Amino acid sequence: MIKIAVDTAGGDFGPEKTVYGSCLALAENPDLSCLFYGFPEQIEQALPDFADQSRIEIIAVNEVITDEDPPFTAVRQKQNSSLMQALGAAAAGKADSFVSAGNSGAIYAGSLSLIGTLPGIKRPASVSILPTVSTSSPYYLLIDSGANTSSKPKHLTTYGHLGSKLAEKLFGKPQPKIGLLNIGSEPSKGTAFTKEVYELLDAEADLNFTGNAEPSGLLNGTHDVILTDGFTGNIMLKAVEGTADILLHDLLGTIKSKVKLDAAAKKAIEHSFKTSINRYTNADIGGGFILGIKAPVVITHGAADEVMFQHSVELAGRLADSNVFSC
Amino acid sequence: MIKIAVDTAGGDFGPEKTVYGSCLALAENPDLSCLFYGFPEQIEQALPDFADQSRIEIIAVNEVITDEDPPFTAVRQKQNSSLMQALGAAAAGKADSFVSAGNSGAIYAGSLSLIGTLPGIKRPASVSILPTVSTSSPYYLLIDSGANTSSKPKHLTTYGHLGSKLAEKLFGKPQPKIGLLNIGSEPSKGTAFTKEVYELLDAEADLNFTGNAEPSGLLNGTHDVILTDGFTGNIMLKAVEGTADILLHDLLGTIKSKVKLDAAAKKAIEHSFKTSINRYTNADIGGGFILGIKAPVVITHGAADEVMFQHSVELAGRLADSNVFSC
Repeated sequence: MIKIAVDTAGGDFGPEKTVYGSCLALAENPDLSCLFYGFPEQIEQALPDFADQSRIEIIAVNEVITDEDPPFTAVRQKQNSSLMQALGAAAAGKADSFVSAGNSGAIYAGSLSLIGTLPGIKRPASVSILPTVSTSSPYYLLIDSGANTSSKPKHLTTYGHLGSKLAEKLFGKPQPKIGLLNIGSEPSKGTAFTKEVYELLDAEADLNFTGNAEPSGLLNGTHDVILTDGFTGNIMLKAVEGTADILLHDLLGTIKSKVKLDAAAKKAIEHSFKTSINRYTNADIGGGFILGIKAPVVITHGAADEVMFQHSVELAGRLADSNVFSC
Repeated sequence: MIKIAVDTAGGDFGPEKTVYGSCLALAENPDLSCLFYGFPEQIEQALPDFADQSRIEIIAVNEVITDEDPPFTAVRQKQNSSLMQALGAAAAGKADSFVSAGNSGAIYAGSLSLIGTLPGIKRPASVSILPTVSTSSPYYLLIDSGANTSSKPKHLTTYGHLGSKLAEKLFGKPQPKIGLLNIGSEPSKGTAFTKEVYELLDAEADLNFTGNAEPSGLLNGTHDVILTDGFTGNIMLKAVEGTADILLHDLLGTIKSKVKLDAAAKKAIEHSFKTSINRYTNADIGGGFILGIKAPVVITHGAADEVMFQHSVELAGRLADSNVFSC
């Protein structure tokens, strides 16, 4: 049984989505169980009829870290919050992984102080699992997708090794293809930072480094791992998600208002668009996680609905089974 | 009459697309005329029947700068190329603007040496005109979209002023809304670079600087000008274009194969998708241009087809009428 510590109070909607979504994950995954950290009355109220109570434990807390709280202060001062208590469970091995839709800065800071980094890691990275249109290579890992805005070149080499192990495990691929996010394919392209990282990665004999990768073609499934600094990675992530979200909704609206369709065709087209929107805005994946610490910590969108939260819990379950969170 | 100097030999397809596309632009814009730089025989062969010869002049050259040529060497050694001769015409005032689908590094280097920068500008920027779904604010300018991978904070203030004048002229908007591309809205977000740029922009009383802007929402038409360094801007540009291109083609394929549609509905849906693809991959706009030099220089995709090239020529025409290319 894999135990997931859930910060039920985090996110824009709290237990209504986090508890309900977790119960959806439990219903579909008999090997998962949840530790719900939060306010018992609110949690009880949010529990759906179908919830399997035998795989649920509720742990009462008496405070909440909000999105407005400054991360480092919150982590120091709100130790009895759902976020910190749930992180503590993952740190102590009482839970195998952690999920929250709460204050991402506080989750990151709390993970550093409670869970701690792997040997040789100074700055853990954020990882996002990005979708592609390829059936043989449907996802790739984007590292760092936002944790460190001033990554150093050698950090990316470390992320390359961890990412390679992770992609092998998650995607079942031997020798995952690793690319460096850049604005051109030649080694001389980009900034002083990318040029230095290129040389370092190129010298790592046990990494399948395939050179620079431009953002334009990544959705075709050309790579398994894309490395970049946290600033560029976050810009890339938000550009992909934002473009998919806004332009697909807009195009669906145009088609519905301008094309004569019978009821069945309309429904089927709406379904295709919704499938695509969920896939390319990462609602299907459930969020990102932290790489370089000793337990899996999944961070999902504050605005995640119950289904996206379900997927976050399922991701936390898959990561618990991985080999990149132990020394 | 606005005169456009066209490098007909540039691009993956040469005159077949550049000359034909230019003639499409002439056919739709009676105030434009073209100077075709290239190999006369090839140009004559590519001229369509509908070409208005009275607005076309052919200037023979005897060499070509290819995409493989190192930019600075090419600019020095191939002065009689179509690229350099056409740039020279724009520099000497024989043409009002320049268009090419050729080697973008050589176009940039050639522009610096032949056309020269505006007073106070050390490093010209690339500008891309990006689409939005908003009807009241259908485009925004992305500056720098790729010219300088190591922009300095003060350069972005200069680009802000030029971009503001340009957006006012191109979009007909007083006090264009200017945002700084970043990974969060708070002034403290991002890198040391973005924090410094934020302070500089915030201190410019005559700029309508509205703070940081995340990539996620830009397609909603929230801004008129987005400022960033050339590395991040190019990543953003390629992420938006690549996402739109790949996922729309994929979704159209899914719908065509999975949804039962009558012929009329199928045609209408294909049309909606194609319209969207052309809009969000910037085929409609025709390409980017250089800001901070003394004449408009439009750079389009090497793979531009005749319609995208037509739009590049039309963009060159609109820019010739702008006020940001003179002292």
